[in-house]
Amino acid sequence: MTAGHGAGLTVVTAGAQMFADSLRAQGVATVEVAWSPPVPGTEDALIRVMLDRRRLEANAAALAALTSAAATLVDVRPAHEALDLRPGHFLHAGPPIGWNRMPGPLRGALIGAVVYEGLADTAEEAEAQLDAGDFTFEPAHHLGAVGPMAGVVSRSMWMFELHDDVHGHRSWCSLNEGLGKVLRYGAYSPDVIERLRWMRDVLGPALQTATRATGGIDIVAIVAQLVQMGDEGHNRNRAGTLMLLKELLPALIRSGLPTGDVADVVAFVSDNDHFFLNLVMPACKLMTVAASGFPGSTVVTTMARNGTDFGIQVSGLGDEWFTGPAQVADGLYLGDYGPDDANPDIGDSAITETAGIGGFAMATAPAIVRLVGGSVSDALATTRRMYDLCVGENPRWALPILDFRGTPTGIDVTSVLRTGHLPQINTGMAGRVAGVGQVGAGLVSPPMECFESAIVALAAAVPLAASR
Amino acid sequence: MTAGHGAGLTVVTAGAQMFADSLRAQGVATVEVAWSPPVPGTEDALIRVMLDRRRLEANAAALAALTSAAATLVDVRPAHEALDLRPGHFLHAGPPIGWNRMPGPLRGALIGAVVYEGLADTAEEAEAQLDAGDFTFEPAHHLGAVGPMAGVVSRSMWMFELHDDVHGHRSWCSLNEGLGKVLRYGAYSPDVIERLRWMRDVLGPALQTATRATGGIDIVAIVAQLVQMGDEGHNRNRAGTLMLLKELLPALIRSGLPTGDVADVVAFVSDNDHFFLNLVMPACKLMTVAASGFPGSTVVTTMARNGTDFGIQVSGLGDEWFTGPAQVADGLYLGDYGPDDANPDIGDSAITETAGIGGFAMATAPAIVRLVGGSVSDALATTRRMYDLCVGENPRWALPILDFRGTPTGIDVTSVLRTGHLPQINTGMAGRVAGVGQVGAGLVSPPMECFESAIVALAAAVPLAASR
Repeated sequence: MTAGHGAGLTVVTAGAQMFADSLRAQGVATVEVAWSPPVPGTEDALIRVMLDRRRLEANAAALAALTSAAATLVDVRPAHEALDLRPGHFLHAGPPIGWNRMPGPLRGALIGAVVYEGLADTAEEAEAQLDAGDFTFEPAHHLGAVGPMAGVVSRSMWMFELHDDVHGHRSWCSLNEGLGKVLRYGAYSPDVIERLRWMRDVLGPALQTATRATGGIDIVAIVAQLVQMGDEGHNRNRAGTLMLLKELLPALIRSGLPTGDVADVVAFVSDNDHFFLNLVMPACKLMTVAASGFPGSTVVTTMARNGTDFGIQVSGLGDEWFTGPAQVADGLYLGDYGPDDANPDIGDSAITETAGIGGFAMATAPAIVRLVGGSVSDALATTRRMYDLCVGENPRWALPILDFRGTPTGIDVTSVLRTGHLPQINTGMAGRVAGVGQVGAGLVSPPMECFESAIVALAAAVPLAASR
Repeated sequence: MTAGHGAGLTVVTAGAQMFADSLRAQGVATVEVAWSPPVPGTEDALIRVMLDRRRLEANAAALAALTSAAATLVDVRPAHEALDLRPGHFLHAGPPIGWNRMPGPLRGALIGAVVYEGLADTAEEAEAQLDAGDFTFEPAHHLGAVGPMAGVVSRSMWMFELHDDVHGHRSWCSLNEGLGKVLRYGAYSPDVIERLRWMRDVLGPALQTATRATGGIDIVAIVAQLVQMGDEGHNRNRAGTLMLLKELLPALIRSGLPTGDVADVVAFVSDNDHFFLNLVMPACKLMTVAASGFPGSTVVTTMARNGTDFGIQVSGLGDEWFTGPAQVADGLYLGDYGPDDANPDIGDSAITETAGIGGFAMATAPAIVRLVGGSVSDALATTRRMYDLCVGENPRWALPILDFRGTPTGIDVTSVLRTGHLPQINTGMAGRVAGVGQVGAGLVSPPMECFESAIVALAAAVPLAASR
């Protein structure tokens, strides 16, 4: 980084802008390399992981698996059939957590699920049973399933079942209830339970009949279209929901079900722009499952939150969780709610960002930046920044406004630590208090701690033979 | 445009770039004004029209009317009811034209319509009757209707009926048949006629029942959404079609019609991404009708083509047509077709550009530029160029990628002649030979002659008292 006067001299600078500025003032040609010091305390582990001979190849293999996974909606079934859930066995979003550390919205959703399953007659009774430790909790991710927000699944809830016939995996997700006062945001009032019963008795069976009649619906293909139609697949799924409806309609109409039920199902699906989220999520889960388990790979395969902890998993480290405190999103609030009403970040829906859409595809959904208080140039800048964190792109999901460049895909733990930039997640915000429901929507990032502990574990896992 | 050395001197330059360059080389601050000489031969008329005291106010009033018009789908009815069409009375696209000057696709569509109406048993018989002058032809525009491509309407075809309750107007358009071998592209084979009969017997009545049950569907609102979903409303209406379907579905399902018919109707609509075009067009017609008839206004209120002539109408001149030769579009061809197979530009669908979408909203539909062989930056540049031709913007139709700027709206005849730039239209291409059908899709512009003759008529219409 020395300079001198003389024709033909070009200096490469890295890091602090003042070097380049000073050289230019002296008439010296400069090439700037974007560089910032790595996150303090991670340098040694980072060096060890970056020198791992297996890394580049393992990351390329993980990316190839992720971007080649299929995701076909093949069935809709109750959770007790699909996932063998027993009575009193509940799934939840994010990494493992016990009742005593659970936040309001997760508690609220469990209270609602206990009542819905008929295990208690009132919310108070349900809460007492939960306090007494009568039930079993397990992350949905541990069974290959995902759930938005609280992500609570009980045995009589119906699940979408998706299949990846390239890698032979299956994944599941519950059916979307709509917005506002709904179980996944921690509400459990009688109307919430009533809606869940209708979903169990009418919606689920109708979707099963229609789905089976279609012979399978290609969810990856619908996502490819929705990112060309102003949806980013996480907080905006308007086009996706309509395209799903289009696929299901002929079979639904010819199903032989009562006309009133068919009309109710169609209205329920088409009036809820988020309905398709619960199909994007398990599709993304199949992609990230395919990318999992490549020794030496530093690609993130899960980002999930239980409302208290944010947890990530990394391809080279299998199912191990690396956690840190979940953050409160920065965004816009419904009605009179404000930051004090919001619970920290919750839900498995960050699986969409893990697979390269949602916040990573902000550029394609400028309409959504208004929802979270940003501008169109913010949206473009966000997607461009995410390319710097990722090992590659997904050519199947092309963003028109970036001249059909593929979505930024495969978050690299080392890139996060080297740049100090965090993945951006679009999210809904649940009320802090059990029973409240949704209070807003906004932008959030994982805590850096997740990546700091992941790099230490990755470094410890580098075999001597693979070190350069 | 004189220059001198001295601090503080700033020179405004207009036209040829070399003036500004030369000044800058001498260290003189310059402000460049984009200017090019007007289209030769129009200077005197242009000056007279631009000095018309009424012009600015009349154009503002025309724009206000255009952007405030309502367009509600209120009914679906056969043309003999809606437009009082008699047997042997046919509507067609574009300005008036006799049989002898009609191009292949318009002849083909008329042959098909004569057979469909049962006025002839074979295409040969129909052609002989047409040659003999047995029938009456009239531009759809003359009855407040519009038709894509050949735009042929006969009495038993069903029409969408739209109402503008702000200005009290009605407009109509036929139902879209889908792509490929269809009447509007000049095809008239037995399968084309068969499809028209099914549309008459099943589709039309089903849409009537559903539309009447909805109590009216706001087409302006759907267009506001589709321009945020990758559609430009002319050659791409994928999101629009799905949103229309969503509005019609509950009533369609509860209609009491046979399940098989309902399923067929839903499949027909949802499998045709262009179905909604035939609702965008009459909505745009209502907007431009509202803008029509403001004395002194130079806003274009119609652009329409019959495949031989391109015609425009101008607000200040009422229903008078100003025509020039229709051009062949520049674009991509289906299969083995090439430029020699294409008929010059045809159809009333340029009413979408007249109302500010279609080619004018290219920026919002980058996916479509691939279809016509362009790039994303072409799409942005096109929309930006169209702002220079227009008197204003339509705040109801906001383009996310331009930070939610309204669509460029209200083509000003004087701006076209002053800049030499022509409105850009996205269009389908019909085969030159009757019976062939669609051969491609691309970009086209009106001939400058339309604007040249319009400015002469506008100049002649300026009252002495209004001249400055």
